[in-house]
Amino acid sequence: MDLEVAMAEVKVDITMSLDGFIAGPNDEIDPLHDWLYGLASWRAPHGLAGGATDRDAEILEEAMTNIGAVILGKRMYALADGWGDTPPFHVPVFVLTHQAREPLVKEGGTTFTFVTEGIESALAQARAAAGDKGISVAGGANTIQQYLSAGLIDEMQIHIAPLLLGEGIRLFDHLGPHHIPLEATRAIASPRITHLRYRVVK
Amino acid sequence: MDLEVAMAEVKVDITMSLDGFIAGPNDEIDPLHDWLYGLASWRAPHGLAGGATDRDAEILEEAMTNIGAVILGKRMYALADGWGDTPPFHVPVFVLTHQAREPLVKEGGTTFTFVTEGIESALAQARAAAGDKGISVAGGANTIQQYLSAGLIDEMQIHIAPLLLGEGIRLFDHLGPHHIPLEATRAIASPRITHLRYRVVK
Repeated sequence: MDLEVAMAEVKVDITMSLDGFIAGPNDEIDPLHDWLYGLASWRAPHGLAGGATDRDAEILEEAMTNIGAVILGKRMYALADGWGDTPPFHVPVFVLTHQAREPLVKEGGTTFTFVTEGIESALAQARAAAGDKGISVAGGANTIQQYLSAGLIDEMQIHIAPLLLGEGIRLFDHLGPHHIPLEATRAIASPRITHLRYRVVK
Repeated sequence: MDLEVAMAEVKVDITMSLDGFIAGPNDEIDPLHDWLYGLASWRAPHGLAGGATDRDAEILEEAMTNIGAVILGKRMYALADGWGDTPPFHVPVFVLTHQAREPLVKEGGTTFTFVTEGIESALAQARAAAGDKGISVAGGANTIQQYLSAGLIDEMQIHIAPLLLGEGIRLFDHLGPHHIPLEATRAIASPRITHLRYRVVK
């Protein structure tokens, strides 16, 4: 009888321009995210019907399946203004912030818990909420960088958009002089987007 | 009778870490270039026997075949100290510099011509030398950025190394606020490296 319990995987899944930006200088995510909006698996969690069910849609769905909790930074939360009444997460979300605040229970299974004790506390709470499912560190860039620098990310899927944005918010920045080796585990391309998946080698 | 002469293609073919660096902070290219050194198609132009003849080797060979001239920046030339008696280019090379200097004829078909009149002059001279073959803008980053900003690059193949370098010389930097749309034309992955090819949309 195997009593070992696998630790939940901590994942990053994000769209980046070929020149390394996940948003423009004013936080704009179009045209980077244009590949998403027509996909059935993007539309469904946003309460929208229809959409394509092609390979890109399957890859997005696969990335969201088995995610039991989400971590994000206060700035990303504020930019989206809490995503309205029915946010697209449908799981517990832990928001890194310096301001204590009561949890928010939204419709459709999304709860926002505001964590003031730092990234390790948020991860511990996300693990407890996720059960045997994975944890998505959803952004923004600064939050992902903090988790990467702390060696807490297990897997990254980077969707490379065919575009040089020129300016904006870099995904990989402020990581310091230490190399982080990766293992490429999958590459799938469509005309719209190239999905590159990596394990972080520890 | 078709008298139209196709313009030679201007290409970038370079290895970049997933976080966007083509060299470390002290210009070090290992471990980024580690995938190259064991390939027969890298070893042969460097005067070395043997090596792997796998898909990575084929892709590298394909990238070098049909290149009739090379353009590079003075800093890259100086860093490599002219590549010794038998440089690995084996075609005419045009070096962007501010200091006029006599051309250098090396062994094995490489000539270095020093161009003080700027990037368009270097390209015109490279076109004349390349005939119906392509032109490689080989680096460094600053030189590639100048040609990209001027709208003079037709195709880019970026070999994404599975590594976050953290610091160093970014390939895509200083490009300004204008988006440059790309068309993804191929993605091929091996465990060592992911080859992404793009057309620059004009």
